[in-house]
Amino acid sequence: MVLNEFSLIDTYFTLLPNPRTDVLLGIGDDGACLRVPLAMDLVVSTDTLVSEVHFLPNWDAYDIALRALLVNISDMAAMAATPCWVTLALTLPVIEPAWLERFSQGLKEGLLRYQMALVGGDTTRGALAMTITIHGLVPQGKALRRSTANAGDKIYVTGALGAAALAVACLAENQWPPEEAQGVLMQALLQPRPRTDWLVLLQTYASAAIDISDGLSSDLAHICRASGLGAWLSLETIPIHPLVSQWRPKQALDFALNGGDDYELCFTVPASIEKAFLVAASQAGLKSHCIGTLVQGEDVRAADAQGRVVSVPAKGYCHF
Amino acid sequence: MVLNEFSLIDTYFTLLPNPRTDVLLGIGDDGACLRVPLAMDLVVSTDTLVSEVHFLPNWDAYDIALRALLVNISDMAAMAATPCWVTLALTLPVIEPAWLERFSQGLKEGLLRYQMALVGGDTTRGALAMTITIHGLVPQGKALRRSTANAGDKIYVTGALGAAALAVACLAENQWPPEEAQGVLMQALLQPRPRTDWLVLLQTYASAAIDISDGLSSDLAHICRASGLGAWLSLETIPIHPLVSQWRPKQALDFALNGGDDYELCFTVPASIEKAFLVAASQAGLKSHCIGTLVQGEDVRAADAQGRVVSVPAKGYCHF
Repeated sequence: MVLNEFSLIDTYFTLLPNPRTDVLLGIGDDGACLRVPLAMDLVVSTDTLVSEVHFLPNWDAYDIALRALLVNISDMAAMAATPCWVTLALTLPVIEPAWLERFSQGLKEGLLRYQMALVGGDTTRGALAMTITIHGLVPQGKALRRSTANAGDKIYVTGALGAAALAVACLAENQWPPEEAQGVLMQALLQPRPRTDWLVLLQTYASAAIDISDGLSSDLAHICRASGLGAWLSLETIPIHPLVSQWRPKQALDFALNGGDDYELCFTVPASIEKAFLVAASQAGLKSHCIGTLVQGEDVRAADAQGRVVSVPAKGYCHF
Repeated sequence: MVLNEFSLIDTYFTLLPNPRTDVLLGIGDDGACLRVPLAMDLVVSTDTLVSEVHFLPNWDAYDIALRALLVNISDMAAMAATPCWVTLALTLPVIEPAWLERFSQGLKEGLLRYQMALVGGDTTRGALAMTITIHGLVPQGKALRRSTANAGDKIYVTGALGAAALAVACLAENQWPPEEAQGVLMQALLQPRPRTDWLVLLQTYASAAIDISDGLSSDLAHICRASGLGAWLSLETIPIHPLVSQWRPKQALDFALNGGDDYELCFTVPASIEKAFLVAASQAGLKSHCIGTLVQGEDVRAADAQGRVVSVPAKGYCHF
């Protein structure tokens, strides 16, 4: 079977849906042409996912593609930007039509779910890997940074943490809780839910934000370092996924605090507008958990079970 | 030596120059924040360069980085867009500070040469490869496509062709012309000159354009296919690099027609404005060569030395 690069792209990627009118020219030229609306800023992020490092080669290609898109969308959510366009650079050892078919179906599902368009692609031969560059839009001046938090700001976390890390641990040990729980855990790992439902609230109330990809302790440390602050955590308020509490009760806090891949958001809210924030979040039906306060200094600290002040080290995932 | 992903990025990439005021937030957050000026469209393109496929691992990392940037800039030139911002996803088997130092120097040289900013990055462990996503700006509605040429349009080529392909052939055969010529050929391969000097003329006069990365015959065929046209070429007008004529006289046309990696531009000009185009190009001091005409049909044809009509097949580089 002879498929060159061009027919490969044609077959699998140019036929993906384009639900957006701001794509003036999509895949198939030297570049895509996109129209950024008035009074919006462009937010861009890029992420490489390497086989055996960020996903397993025996995963369904549908899951690989969908998850790659979802974790990139999470970066947009962390910037308070609406995800719009992606480019995909796919490196493949061989061309397997069945694999590509599943991969493009996963991509399609993710694009439709978030009303996004694939606007550029490149395919090359090599070890299985992919780089996604994602583009989002945010009202001018409203993009959220890590560096703009202030001492006294309250630290919030969306959702519950630790389920994806528990799935990774179960995969590594090849030991699983009963079937239903296994499904929930694998779903948490394979189809994280980027928190685009929080965009408007973040734009309105947050002073800084990050998505929890490497682990809460590590990602909160990024906010602290970028903002030149420390933090005081109330460990008992950290939201732990119920399956983690159930199946790893002794390590539950460790999973929630240091496990990665949750793709929930960690953000800060100035104390002066916290009440208004809580009212607005409640009206929007969005739940989050206050887990502490940013403080002057540079350490992240908490009280242990005996009431002693302990340091909370950043123990997240390291790519090298 | 322990260098994690974050300090790696910090050390080599966050300190690169940022000559642009439209970068509101650069590397180091979940995404970059960029301001697209009024009345401009955004052009985006992505390209992966894999070791052993697109470059050789024994090349100086300076050359690898600079060339990766230049070939991406060429895609912007082909769209008539001014290159502005890039993201870089770098996959490395190991962290070698000396290699990274040279790599970042090459990147810096390219960014400064074209007044661009690196606005996003990701580093991962794996087989040596990099994906660059480049962003350019073009006045609204002025982005040049491949699909918008018309029958009767004249076909133009900038510069002279074949030198980079000759360098590739010399590398493969390990046989070189004398030293000075070798330097020129390697320069053509390693530091192609993306034709951003043509942007305004293209925006004003061209009906379609592509950059010559895979080879003229192949890239012209893209314009023909996208525009639903054929072409009639005057083979004797195809601009051949003098070193190619000198060192491979018998294969010179083949190198110019089918060799890749030149990163000159092939564009089309409606016959009705050709005279005005030539005046403007002359005033701008820019030289190009008319090599034929787009015609109805779907074949690219020419007359051979005996005056017989022959087909000119697309024989460019195929990535698979």
